[in-house]
Amino acid sequence: MRSPDYRVYLVLDPGQCGGLAGMLRVSEAAIAGGAGLVQLRAPDWKKRDWLAAARALKTLCHARGARLIVNDHVDVALAIGADGVHVGQADLPAGVARALLGPDAIVGLSVSSAAELAEADLAAVDYLGVGPVFATASKPDAAPPLDLPALGALVSAARRPCVAIGGIDLNNAAAVAATGVAGVAVIGALCRAPDPTAAARALLKHFGDNR
Amino acid sequence: MRSPDYRVYLVLDPGQCGGLAGMLRVSEAAIAGGAGLVQLRAPDWKKRDWLAAARALKTLCHARGARLIVNDHVDVALAIGADGVHVGQADLPAGVARALLGPDAIVGLSVSSAAELAEADLAAVDYLGVGPVFATASKPDAAPPLDLPALGALVSAARRPCVAIGGIDLNNAAAVAATGVAGVAVIGALCRAPDPTAAARALLKHFGDNR
Repeated sequence: MRSPDYRVYLVLDPGQCGGLAGMLRVSEAAIAGGAGLVQLRAPDWKKRDWLAAARALKTLCHARGARLIVNDHVDVALAIGADGVHVGQADLPAGVARALLGPDAIVGLSVSSAAELAEADLAAVDYLGVGPVFATASKPDAAPPLDLPALGALVSAARRPCVAIGGIDLNNAAAVAATGVAGVAVIGALCRAPDPTAAARALLKHFGDNR
Repeated sequence: MRSPDYRVYLVLDPGQCGGLAGMLRVSEAAIAGGAGLVQLRAPDWKKRDWLAAARALKTLCHARGARLIVNDHVDVALAIGADGVHVGQADLPAGVARALLGPDAIVGLSVSSAAELAEADLAAVDYLGVGPVFATASKPDAAPPLDLPALGALVSAARRPCVAIGGIDLNNAAAVAATGVAGVAVIGALCRAPDPTAAARALLKHFGDNR
């Protein structure tokens, strides 16, 4: 499997998109603008809804050349054959996710500090989601923001591609890209964009063709 | 694998037990009194906590001849090699759980009405959890209570062993057993019992040796 295109990574929020129909609409538009990864993240949903949404999103993503990542729920990813999972520090350990999903799946892990990076099971991980870079309204329980110098230090120390997350928008994306991250993961900057295709294109341009 | 002993089925509630230490204490005592199945159910927990609790409970259950069932999270069940899962109407479908867990796992499904029974994927299911029989404080989002005549009608129509759940205690267990259920699933009647061993024995006696 070719390495994922981490440059523009859409993380879906059901509330900000207006439910599944909005999530599909935003995904389609963002992929048209260059988003290569789409993550389903719906912490308040029951799994029957996860399953239906993941199935529909996988069909859409694969038809348009993007990959679908399932947040947290490895069983949902297995059930629908998602491209991978993203786990946080309180979710199943990355090594458990890797063991359940096999070697071809994409496994991402959130890290928010040097201590979490030092403890990360990098052998099980394809990429790191590093953040929150800035304060964000999309994840009320997020850790304190890192800001750019600490992000840069984590990216330099990490031995995996890093995707920055947390409060990233069209205004600060250039500075974030300059830290050496492989890409940016965004929720509001795409889910609430009047034109998600244009927004994805604007984010993508900070990463050139350096996949 | 011998058929599970459904007669006394302990469903653990972290709040009522006082966390994992209390869940282990209640499980050990209830198994000593005859509980053959223990279910881990912690809807408010993150999966890292599920994993640790499920591992500890599996070790305890298997050392003492009981089986461990994981509520909802098939990935947790897979990760620790639980004996099975219990899924509700909004969780992953029983057929999906069966496909992920394989033919030897125990798969239980909640049904609360004749309509849900008619739609149940019985080929994927080992047992049905039928309820709530009575009003219960342990599950605030439960459906309206069935009461005994409707429970009896569902048990007669079901082509799988039925475990009654919801508000069952030492006072009403005899009447519940008389409907023909294979067993009773209880939360508070064991988790809040001063002596869970004695409470499990008192529930068990209504089912004789008719496993």
